[in-house]
Amino acid sequence: MTTKPKVPPVRRSERARSAILTATTELVFEVPYGRLTIEAIAARAGVGKQTIYRWWPTKGAVLFDALLELSGGPDGVALPDTGDLRADLGLFLRATVAEMTEPRFDAFLRAVMIEIQSDPDLAEVYRERLLAPQREAIHERLRIAVESGAIRADADLEVAVDLLVGPVQTRWALGLGGLTEGYADSLLELVLAAVNPS
Amino acid sequence: MTTKPKVPPVRRSERARSAILTATTELVFEVPYGRLTIEAIAARAGVGKQTIYRWWPTKGAVLFDALLELSGGPDGVALPDTGDLRADLGLFLRATVAEMTEPRFDAFLRAVMIEIQSDPDLAEVYRERLLAPQREAIHERLRIAVESGAIRADADLEVAVDLLVGPVQTRWALGLGGLTEGYADSLLELVLAAVNPS
Repeated sequence: MTTKPKVPPVRRSERARSAILTATTELVFEVPYGRLTIEAIAARAGVGKQTIYRWWPTKGAVLFDALLELSGGPDGVALPDTGDLRADLGLFLRATVAEMTEPRFDAFLRAVMIEIQSDPDLAEVYRERLLAPQREAIHERLRIAVESGAIRADADLEVAVDLLVGPVQTRWALGLGGLTEGYADSLLELVLAAVNPS
Repeated sequence: MTTKPKVPPVRRSERARSAILTATTELVFEVPYGRLTIEAIAARAGVGKQTIYRWWPTKGAVLFDALLELSGGPDGVALPDTGDLRADLGLFLRATVAEMTEPRFDAFLRAVMIEIQSDPDLAEVYRERLLAPQREAIHERLRIAVESGAIRADADLEVAVDLLVGPVQTRWALGLGGLTEGYADSLLELVLAAVNPS
């Protein structure tokens, strides 16, 4: 009597979960999101459709977990702090522009954008798990700059965070283009002027 | 022999077109956009499905024409010019915040957002017909302010337009909330500081 090597159920689940998230990430780049189906994800991952529905209620929920995996967890959200505000925010803005214009990330984020317009619960999770930590990291860097005198004490830092992220996000979401390093630098100059002491 | 009063074909077409756009605007507020169908629009408008497909290739195309009708054409895009930059931009920002938080307009714009993430051709038309005139109107008001000395001559006005529209647009698109008149005023202060002469 021959037996297959036994894979413990937990590890098998973990493998299936990982295959499903990888399949989702690949397919979002290949297929228009409106035409991406749970069936296609199951086929690519080599699992049954019911395996996906056991863990995720909707396509959007799978997409979101794939995004969390891509984003690499909390380590990805800290802002550099070299003591030089201009250099640190410049790096952050250039990195943001590079990320938003990377074709795979672009396709992925557009799918997320569609989901958060349609599904308020998913939008709430997105804000809590991803946006809030990102915004808090920027806010924290600005707070340090207020303490060191690089930003005036009465500047509204929540609005300053919006000045840093809003223009790039909007150009990206509306497909206005022009997202270059030069753009990141021009934006930086205006934002620094907005919060400058003196 | 009795005859129905005859409606000339052009006028009948015009009526059907108008009924279809009105039905679309109503349904976008009532039904999640992903579940809104051409069939439902046809039924509400009292026309056959084929009548819609004769004029519009997709649901997104109908939605976009309904948006153009809602937006009220080119008259809607001029910015006030009282000679007082702070007052004029303040009015513009408060009006934008009021518009983006109006539930019907919000539902409509979220549907547009979904479509422009999915359909690059529609996104292009959206940018040319609606976004470009809006941005040009803001840019023009800023240019006048440069001439009058209210904005420094070396400010990058395209980025300044982004500072005015990006933060509100991003808070709206990502559902971050906080879109109040007070927010509009705080944003105005930072943008004015960014472009201030001296």
